[in-house]
Amino acid sequence: MKHILLLGGGKSSTVLMNYLLERAGEEQWQLTIGDMQPELIRSKTKDSTRATVVQFNLSDAAQLQSLVKQADLVISMLPAMFHPLVAKECLRQGRNMVTASYVSDDMRTMAKDVEAAGLLFLNEMGVDPGIDHMSAMKVIDEIRAKGGKMTAFESFTGGLLAPESEKDNPWRYKFTWNPRNVVLAGQGVAKFIQMGQYKYIPYHRLFRRTELINIPGYGMFEGYGNRDSLGYREQYGLQDVHTMYRGTLRRPGFCRSWDVFVSLGATDDSYIIQESETMTYRQFINSFLAYHPTDSVELKLAHYLRLDLDSEEMYKLQWLGIFDDKPIGLKNATPAQILQKILEDKWSLEPDDKDMLVMWHKFNYELEGRQHEKHSFMVSIGKDTLETAMATTVGLPVGIAVKMILQGRMPLVGVHIPTIKAVYEPLLEELGHHGISFIERDVQ
Amino acid sequence: MKHILLLGGGKSSTVLMNYLLERAGEEQWQLTIGDMQPELIRSKTKDSTRATVVQFNLSDAAQLQSLVKQADLVISMLPAMFHPLVAKECLRQGRNMVTASYVSDDMRTMAKDVEAAGLLFLNEMGVDPGIDHMSAMKVIDEIRAKGGKMTAFESFTGGLLAPESEKDNPWRYKFTWNPRNVVLAGQGVAKFIQMGQYKYIPYHRLFRRTELINIPGYGMFEGYGNRDSLGYREQYGLQDVHTMYRGTLRRPGFCRSWDVFVSLGATDDSYIIQESETMTYRQFINSFLAYHPTDSVELKLAHYLRLDLDSEEMYKLQWLGIFDDKPIGLKNATPAQILQKILEDKWSLEPDDKDMLVMWHKFNYELEGRQHEKHSFMVSIGKDTLETAMATTVGLPVGIAVKMILQGRMPLVGVHIPTIKAVYEPLLEELGHHGISFIERDVQ
Repeated sequence: MKHILLLGGGKSSTVLMNYLLERAGEEQWQLTIGDMQPELIRSKTKDSTRATVVQFNLSDAAQLQSLVKQADLVISMLPAMFHPLVAKECLRQGRNMVTASYVSDDMRTMAKDVEAAGLLFLNEMGVDPGIDHMSAMKVIDEIRAKGGKMTAFESFTGGLLAPESEKDNPWRYKFTWNPRNVVLAGQGVAKFIQMGQYKYIPYHRLFRRTELINIPGYGMFEGYGNRDSLGYREQYGLQDVHTMYRGTLRRPGFCRSWDVFVSLGATDDSYIIQESETMTYRQFINSFLAYHPTDSVELKLAHYLRLDLDSEEMYKLQWLGIFDDKPIGLKNATPAQILQKILEDKWSLEPDDKDMLVMWHKFNYELEGRQHEKHSFMVSIGKDTLETAMATTVGLPVGIAVKMILQGRMPLVGVHIPTIKAVYEPLLEELGHHGISFIERDVQ
Repeated sequence: MKHILLLGGGKSSTVLMNYLLERAGEEQWQLTIGDMQPELIRSKTKDSTRATVVQFNLSDAAQLQSLVKQADLVISMLPAMFHPLVAKECLRQGRNMVTASYVSDDMRTMAKDVEAAGLLFLNEMGVDPGIDHMSAMKVIDEIRAKGGKMTAFESFTGGLLAPESEKDNPWRYKFTWNPRNVVLAGQGVAKFIQMGQYKYIPYHRLFRRTELINIPGYGMFEGYGNRDSLGYREQYGLQDVHTMYRGTLRRPGFCRSWDVFVSLGATDDSYIIQESETMTYRQFINSFLAYHPTDSVELKLAHYLRLDLDSEEMYKLQWLGIFDDKPIGLKNATPAQILQKILEDKWSLEPDDKDMLVMWHKFNYELEGRQHEKHSFMVSIGKDTLETAMATTVGLPVGIAVKMILQGRMPLVGVHIPTIKAVYEPLLEELGHHGISFIERDVQ
């Protein structure tokens, strides 16, 4: 009997829990799920005898200690900032650990001790980061095996709506994961390298520097740059490529309209809006526009941002209801918190909505004196609002990795991400059995 | 005999030192100046027997302790972040203190203890903050004394070039104080209230939301908003005004062109530019523009920011040399550090340059059922590159305040700023004797 401890049973853990419980009998697993709201989780585990759900409080060090003690492996699906706390306890007690989050500096500094203890802390096992690493490294390793030399790599991922759920929604978008992260996405500076030149895009320009991408069978998308593309050169062993660019996908036209909020300053999370509780949506938008005794908020906004009153952008804003005399009702809120509240009116998934996860890579390489280009892409459509594409593509790789570790099929120690063939090869294969597979095309 | 300790003898202390040393004999003062570079200060104190210059190191707690011990009063002209350290020592040893900086949160939390100890920590005694408080409160208190009710207050200050030094400089601007602060000016969000509506301007829009101001005899200026105008309502007792706006003055056209750097992201101080040491000015600008195999940096910039190639903005940029193939030569530098370096080529004061300090207030009030408007402004022109208008308007109020405290003419204890009549009245009067006086005009 092997004990698995899963910390955090939120939205993105649904598919993971199902995956583990479906195999728990056969694999002789016992699963303990710790969450702040155990009732919600119990409704999902459906009285499985293989699952125990406990009220978990991260500030209770003794509880964490005893939960880790009885586990053979710990999965942390908590917000990323809490991983180091869990990781320290796993290191102390000699337990393996899996997360779907980026390796933090705290985690990185533990690497030597983790390796010395013969443990494996496997991170970035979700979709982005996660499946992106695995699917990219598979192609990169194949190109190298043929004697090819990588010259450029671009990669885009987006959590969007399934085409059937895009109808009557001019943004063709709803929140399919943490809304707060969507509102704050891109803040900072986007860093990448193109044709050997380092490029930097400040946040207030990011959503106007997009590129169009066609995904066969799914139509056109637009991509904006992620914060740091440069670090991936080392992680993928691509120190010599002249171009390295990673980004996020939206449907065409989304970014131009989203840029209205960025330009206004409505995505700022660094200060409190005065008297936010008694303000209306309309007054919130007006607080970013110059005072005028008679001009309408609509006209002032259009003029300020050089939009035509009958433009697609103005239509999308009207559709969201941002000009409505509707009270915000949030006390001491930041602009970003208020904007999130307004967007949730229209961007929350309805019971019959389905989401879609899209990933697209472009590889350029030289082989036998010739330039080549290869694309690789994957589209996953959610089943419903619980088994979303997001929860599936985040949860399955975590679940498969856990199975491989517990079966002794993961010959690794230390702090790792899935860029290694021994990890990604079996994992991508099993993902394929679950309908998550990449289509690769040589285009040049 | 009274001992004065002056910490920090940089540029803005020159006039202050002269003021204190000129009166030291008569007033029976002994001045100790602590600075990191004592040789530089010694060349300014000209072997006065009233001055002792010591090599001062802020990390040497024992030295700070002994210097404060022998002083009756401490002036801190150090960078603002070091004031709390000095203040704590002054509180511990029971010494009065004067600074020209904003009251920090650290300083504010000491207020009760300072008052209980019967001490005075007088802050914001420079020009902005300092003379702005005094000259504004004088008019506000006069309006109130007549039974008037303030409805709106606006105030702008700028450190610029004297008209005779503006020639052949399309920006009509050079660095007249800390260049780094000029490059970073305005970062964050500008908050103010206009006609009862709270307004927020994000940094990337700040330099496009200016207003024009005419100063009789000195021509037109443009003003952009300072970070937080709202806090001044309480400080000035203006909680009920419908409009409160404070800003910074430049010559017309400056802000539109400065906005080019803001839009590019070239004023960002939060990350390091890759390989900055071997980069040229031109490559630095190009790193914020999209890659193109043949288009020039000039054309790409003009197109990106919607500028005509023959526009005033492009001329100002060309004049600065930002498109030159000149090496930057700064290792691991941020965009803001690189931009400062580039600007210093053209924006450093020449030996015959003079600076100019301009301050302008607008007061609206109701009196006997009628609306009134009053303006008050001051212009100070520097003598040379040592006795600049900046050093004069920062140093004199500090010096006069020190004199008043040591003469026992400052009947105050606690942490204060010069908004109190007993402080500003004698101080403004003596400033007038030094040629720093305000012209007040009733315009409505």
